[in-house]
Amino acid sequence: MKISHIEHLGIAVKSIEEALPYYENVLGLKCYNIETVEDQKVRTAFLKVGDTKIELLEPTCPESTIAKFIENKGVGVHHVAFAVEDGVANALAEAESKEIRLIDKSPRKGAEGLQIAFLHPKSTLGVLTELCEH
Amino acid sequence: MKISHIEHLGIAVKSIEEALPYYENVLGLKCYNIETVEDQKVRTAFLKVGDTKIELLEPTCPESTIAKFIENKGVGVHHVAFAVEDGVANALAEAESKEIRLIDKSPRKGAEGLQIAFLHPKSTLGVLTELCEH
Repeated sequence: MKISHIEHLGIAVKSIEEALPYYENVLGLKCYNIETVEDQKVRTAFLKVGDTKIELLEPTCPESTIAKFIENKGVGVHHVAFAVEDGVANALAEAESKEIRLIDKSPRKGAEGLQIAFLHPKSTLGVLTELCEH
Repeated sequence: MKISHIEHLGIAVKSIEEALPYYENVLGLKCYNIETVEDQKVRTAFLKVGDTKIELLEPTCPESTIAKFIENKGVGVHHVAFAVEDGVANALAEAESKEIRLIDKSPRKGAEGLQIAFLHPKSTLGVLTELCEH
């Protein structure tokens, strides 16, 4: 698998409006986009830091996986997304051949128009891992 | 605060030897250094990905804060470290003036000879946050 960089860190928050003052006024980062990903039941806010983004994830309803994550584990880092250079489908095939459990068997469309797929944290030492490509 | 990039992601693992095959053989990253930070009771392994490092943190004894973290929350992302450009002491002073709770009142020496300090996750929306500078 060819990973170029950490594309983003997904961070679960209860409210983007409550979280942004910390990220913008304390850390000095800048939110450049807020969008809702309907089928994932999340609202996302993006801030850039170096070659990585911070993606704040706010649940839009109690059935959202982010709402359940917050209920179980509290707010905080939800997932780590790596940018792959050789295609998400290839990366998934390679991961599967190495006995990594896949959440997504094939790439799907994520926020910002990325092709994305998730690896299961049971296979990735507890880190919910996303592979993505523009 | 002037943050240039995510310096590293700290990831708690039970065993570096058990974790490295995933990071090296599946993700294709390369471990370039392993060191023990005695006063923090951790053994650390570093892998580079883009302008960020992944720092695997293995407890060296049951009293290690990493051992306690794993006991409470399981293995996975432990902290996010931002590289600051204007000095860790300045960044701490600014954070404190904005009512952020500090774990370290002044910078101390971390792995790889960095000056580091931690902000308390109660003030940082659940993300244990490190500020660091070379």
